[in-house]
Amino acid sequence: MSAIENSTLAIVGAGSVGTATAYAAMIRGSARHVRLYDIDAARVEAEVLDLAHGSQFTGASDIDGGADLKHVEGADVVVITAGAKQHPGQTRLDLAGTNVDILRSMLPKLLERAPDAVFVLVTNPCDVLTVAAQQITGLPSSRVFSSGTVLDTARLRWKLAQRAGVAQSSVHAHIVGEHGDTEFPLWSAASIGVTPLLEWQRNGLRVFDAEELETLSEDVRNAAYKVIAGKGATNYAIGLSAARIVEAVLGDEHAILPVSSVLDGFLDIHGVALSIPTVVSAGGVQPVTTTPFAENEAQALRDSARALAKVQSSLGI
Amino acid sequence: MSAIENSTLAIVGAGSVGTATAYAAMIRGSARHVRLYDIDAARVEAEVLDLAHGSQFTGASDIDGGADLKHVEGADVVVITAGAKQHPGQTRLDLAGTNVDILRSMLPKLLERAPDAVFVLVTNPCDVLTVAAQQITGLPSSRVFSSGTVLDTARLRWKLAQRAGVAQSSVHAHIVGEHGDTEFPLWSAASIGVTPLLEWQRNGLRVFDAEELETLSEDVRNAAYKVIAGKGATNYAIGLSAARIVEAVLGDEHAILPVSSVLDGFLDIHGVALSIPTVVSAGGVQPVTTTPFAENEAQALRDSARALAKVQSSLGI
Amino acid sequence: MSAIENSTLAIVGAGSVGTATAYAAMIRGSARHVRLYDIDAARVEAEVLDLAHGSQFTGASDIDGGADLKHVEGADVVVITAGAKQHPGQTRLDLAGTNVDILRSMLPKLLERAPDAVFVLVTNPCDVLTVAAQQITGLPSSRVFSSGTVLDTARLRWKLAQRAGVAQSSVHAHIVGEHGDTEFPLWSAASIGVTPLLEWQRNGLRVFDAEELETLSEDVRNAAYKVIAGKGATNYAIGLSAARIVEAVLGDEHAILPVSSVLDGFLDIHGVALSIPTVVSAGGVQPVTTTPFAENEAQALRDSARALAKVQSSLGI
Amino acid sequence: MSAIENSTLAIVGAGSVGTATAYAAMIRGSARHVRLYDIDAARVEAEVLDLAHGSQFTGASDIDGGADLKHVEGADVVVITAGAKQHPGQTRLDLAGTNVDILRSMLPKLLERAPDAVFVLVTNPCDVLTVAAQQITGLPSSRVFSSGTVLDTARLRWKLAQRAGVAQSSVHAHIVGEHGDTEFPLWSAASIGVTPLLEWQRNGLRVFDAEELETLSEDVRNAAYKVIAGKGATNYAIGLSAARIVEAVLGDEHAILPVSSVLDGFLDIHGVALSIPTVVSAGGVQPVTTTPFAENEAQALRDSARALAKVQSSLGI
Repeated sequence: MSAIENSTLAIVGAGSVGTATAYAAMIRGSARHVRLYDIDAARVEAEVLDLAHGSQFTGASDIDGGADLKHVEGADVVVITAGAKQHPGQTRLDLAGTNVDILRSMLPKLLERAPDAVFVLVTNPCDVLTVAAQQITGLPSSRVFSSGTVLDTARLRWKLAQRAGVAQSSVHAHIVGEHGDTEFPLWSAASIGVTPLLEWQRNGLRVFDAEELETLSEDVRNAAYKVIAGKGATNYAIGLSAARIVEAVLGDEHAILPVSSVLDGFLDIHGVALSIPTVVSAGGVQPVTTTPFAENEAQALRDSARALAKVQSSLGI
Repeated sequence: MSAIENSTLAIVGAGSVGTATAYAAMIRGSARHVRLYDIDAARVEAEVLDLAHGSQFTGASDIDGGADLKHVEGADVVVITAGAKQHPGQTRLDLAGTNVDILRSMLPKLLERAPDAVFVLVTNPCDVLTVAAQQITGLPSSRVFSSGTVLDTARLRWKLAQRAGVAQSSVHAHIVGEHGDTEFPLWSAASIGVTPLLEWQRNGLRVFDAEELETLSEDVRNAAYKVIAGKGATNYAIGLSAARIVEAVLGDEHAILPVSSVLDGFLDIHGVALSIPTVVSAGGVQPVTTTPFAENEAQALRDSARALAKVQSSLGI
Repeated sequence: MSAIENSTLAIVGAGSVGTATAYAAMIRGSARHVRLYDIDAARVEAEVLDLAHGSQFTGASDIDGGADLKHVEGADVVVITAGAKQHPGQTRLDLAGTNVDILRSMLPKLLERAPDAVFVLVTNPCDVLTVAAQQITGLPSSRVFSSGTVLDTARLRWKLAQRAGVAQSSVHAHIVGEHGDTEFPLWSAASIGVTPLLEWQRNGLRVFDAEELETLSEDVRNAAYKVIAGKGATNYAIGLSAARIVEAVLGDEHAILPVSSVLDGFLDIHGVALSIPTVVSAGGVQPVTTTPFAENEAQALRDSARALAKVQSSLGI
Repeated sequence: MSAIENSTLAIVGAGSVGTATAYAAMIRGSARHVRLYDIDAARVEAEVLDLAHGSQFTGASDIDGGADLKHVEGADVVVITAGAKQHPGQTRLDLAGTNVDILRSMLPKLLERAPDAVFVLVTNPCDVLTVAAQQITGLPSSRVFSSGTVLDTARLRWKLAQRAGVAQSSVHAHIVGEHGDTEFPLWSAASIGVTPLLEWQRNGLRVFDAEELETLSEDVRNAAYKVIAGKGATNYAIGLSAARIVEAVLGDEHAILPVSSVLDGFLDIHGVALSIPTVVSAGGVQPVTTTPFAENEAQALRDSARALAKVQSSLGI
């Protein structure tokens, strides 16, 4: 009937991450239709109402949702935020078993309702869950991936931009690897504008040295713990990260973002999902296998892979 | 030093409303600088971090904050979300005493730090608190006002738009009066495009009748209770409403919004704050005293005023 | 292959109006794909290059085009700006014959390439051309319409907002009828916020009287002539108007805009295209037949219709 | 009176570049107030009207202007587009003499009206004019600069993005040097994501080789000539470039952009303005002197400098 079939984003999970994603997506106009699904009917209906009440101040996005799977029907992108969440002190890997079980019960139903969707996992531990999700759905690895280190990268760039005294858009740096304790920055390719980090000056003086970079990368690794300690959860930044990824998919942008998908031979890593710079488009994701890794960086990525493979094996995936 | 002094928004209170306001303001670019202040240092620092971590995906707004009043220094707009919050079952008026006391202790310090700011109250019961705040600060009533029925109006327009089958931007209707149980729509001036509500047709059939309008206006009055019952609080829609009001101030827009400020003679109402269509600009607010009220609407507004005057008197303001 | 088929806007005519439309659409992100088609290959290729060179600074919209009809292929919306243009001193109606002939040769080819598109005419005299276009294409009147008095309405609101001292978004007024010399404002339904125009006060004094409104409506009627006298053409405002209409279609907004489509019985007018408030969505347009017209306004619209019917008859349509 | 003094952009010159800059700035909301000044009253008034008529569809930016210098009063940024323009076949340097004379007569008056403004030259040959403008005004080189190779860089990134199959935001490359025939890309620091250009693969195959890069850089150098040949001028892309630069200044962004300012010792170049990556903020510009240049790139920049110094000397600057 209509000239164009407009984009639909379905968000699974009406907790603080799912609703922050919906809020960011509505304000940014990331999708024409935003749908929120959760098994807790009272909660999801209240969240949908609260979001809808703000829609006068946003653009053409509308919001709907509830506890019925019909709200996932025909979605172009499904963002999965449902799952047990990381508690203060808990590592992301501790969550794995519970959340794999949740995916096992949930994904087949979602896939039935949205058979052509691109699936984006935000639930942690997202790398392990990405492998599980791919196995459960049988989809090509391009169509099931997770937000990976997109958020960690944003955390790093914020810190670097502040220290360097420049706009974040002029900071080029990536966190890669596991979205978790073994993640690390690709320092060898990091720059402010086109100036290598260690050469960058402010008021005639160098800003960074190797020691500070080490501290920064530790800060980023621990950022989630710090936020969780203070407010009990992280939600706003991950909500924006998820909305940004959704835009790259729905807009068929071919933007390069460090999302996590199952690797198939990059640096000899197979069957483990890790974040490296990846082209994100309407067709899904393609890891950039020409990304240069210094030898120590390659080693660190392989170490991450080994650690994750062990977790996967202990979970039977 | 710099070509222009950029706009600063200080948000007081790092609870779910204050942080949703900060999040919406950052994503929309409502202010160049967003500052979050709360007496709970651990909480506010965690919230600031979480918001800052998302700033790679927003425009030029930056975020800072903490438990030190210096974060309010020189703000152009101060949005106050701090206060005891409305519990399930509790009326907005029950909150009054506690929150007036909070304003008494807090406002003088805020005014000292941001002596030229426009103050926007979001804390409830916002009408009564507006009167208290004006008395406490001694500012002209143009510079201390509250979000009033901006959110209620958004709720009404969302419902009307859905029923009418049109964009919300084509729905013209206002909720006026108390942000609370005695609020009511200005039906006499409501329209879809330029068609009076009761005349509007969809597929050749009238959509609205008097009974349905009554139901809609009751739904809007009860919307907050419904959201609170389901998720324990309202935050997203009020965050967007607050960001929208901030934009009207910082952008010197002279937009007409139903905010609540102390009335001085409109329909013979004095010394009570109620929402009517109001011009919002960098100079603050000016209620539109030419707004036509049908006789029953005028009566309803005077009734609201009498009810609020009683509350004020029992609170000693 | 991809998760979603993104929206395509084809603009026909690479003159100053067509390129301003493309520029506005790219900057606003009105469509994912913007295509520019013109029979003058050298010109259209240069314009596409100039637009593409700016695309680093816009969002995900891309631009392409040329003198080959393939650039119209599969478009969701086709905006037609091609045609002989209005010269200083010339009335819009003088252009009619030439531009009907152009439509006769061009529309069948466009329809073949974009059989499911919504067609928006910007070429003048747009009302007469809308009737011609509907006859030539045989499409339902919902799918062939023109920008009508959207631009004239914007001109009026700008003037009223300036005089009233409020944001344009708070001015409610429509120019209806012919996009030309017999157009007129629907004063009976015009307001600032919800205050009727004649009641509006600024600093305690009434702003408008009947005489001034008459002057304003004359100014609007003559605005195009004034701009053409000074710069030889109008292009920027009509470019924005066209981009706005395109967004209402592609976003399936159901926004109410005074576009012009063939009327079928409204106020007993048949077979003539005139602008009245109209719902614009992905399915095309639906004139709001419940729009209240005062008796003198209804008479004025019928007069416009008679004048246009004469022109149509002299053109054999 | 008001909470904040809003940003004002004054554009000098109401030709196709000045008006495209104003149009882009209004649509993007680059400044709260956009002012257009030109000595041709009829022309500038018509352009202001045409722009203002579109303002219903833009945000809070307003537009004003005319042939009176009062429109430049108090501007925060002044963008200069006035001057004789480049004709088909003419080199940018041929224009120099005429346009230096125009600056000599115009700049003192502009500076008197906007003594605290940042001045951005868009008129060509922009590098030579930047030196002249600094001498005429006596301002520090941070406050007088030109758009330089911002546009050339955008042209290069568009081409690279198309060939590489990625979003433009994922292409990192800069054109530096003269905005003209001796400009060149900093290939040594160019990348797609973090992959060096020559390593980038699409569908498993390398995309670029040295020869193709040479062709691309020649295409960019000749892009303006190509556009001018087809449409008589370039205006849309340069308008967007100028609006983007204005945002970096007014938003105090500290974004890194290849604008052109008078160099004072970088690679031993003195007293000549050339584009290198430069931090742009409300305080003006700071060239990034740590930008790595390969030896052949440094040589090319010094050659550009020598060529421009000769021109300057022949012009008595």
